[in-house]
Amino acid sequence: MKVQSIESHEQAQVTLEGARDTKMRTLIGPDDGATNFHMRHFEIAPGGCTPHHSHNYEHEIVVLSGQGVAMSEEGERPFKTGDVIFVPANERHQLVNRSGRRLEVICLVPALEP
Amino acid sequence: MKVQSIESHEQAQVTLEGARDTKMRTLIGPDDGATNFHMRHFEIAPGGCTPHHSHNYEHEIVVLSGQGVAMSEEGERPFKTGDVIFVPANERHQLVNRSGRRLEVICLVPALEP
Repeated sequence: MKVQSIESHEQAQVTLEGARDTKMRTLIGPDDGATNFHMRHFEIAPGGCTPHHSHNYEHEIVVLSGQGVAMSEEGERPFKTGDVIFVPANERHQLVNRSGRRLEVICLVPALEP
Repeated sequence: MKVQSIESHEQAQVTLEGARDTKMRTLIGPDDGATNFHMRHFEIAPGGCTPHHSHNYEHEIVVLSGQGVAMSEEGERPFKTGDVIFVPANERHQLVNRSGRRLEVICLVPALEP
């Protein structure tokens, strides 16, 4: 069993095209022996965003702190601390932080083929 | 895309043998079209616990608020808000709340066969 604080995991800048002022940590991944799905932490600074993109796998997200806007195919969806977001596979999406404070979310994805 | 508060999801008592004063919400599950893995919310009252058991699938947990003790095969592992817990498949485990305040965790499991 692994028990470890979020902060103790290495944090790296997200360098995907379209990402801005966003950092990521892998919390539970292949190194832990997780073979079905993986847990990541994202920190989006004020004015930052994740890429506006789609892919053939889903996101399961819980918002730890802050507020933001999810750009969805049905328009803008505001969200805040304590919200849950499900992005189905192949739906175009983006998380944007227009607030003045840091936004932190947990985002899970299926284990992808290597 | 679904965007919804944790609180807006129906909450039910966990009736598994060995569970005490624990309530569960399914946050992202089959009804949302999630086919790979599912997100649940657990609220464990002071003095409450989840069953002490094992099963052939893993848990990926993030602690939203409060503190507790994970009974693991290596002994007791204390945890608190902002910690991440990975319970590998087939490892015996239990979450216990010995504190005086409510414990809330998010726990993900693979989508199980019907």
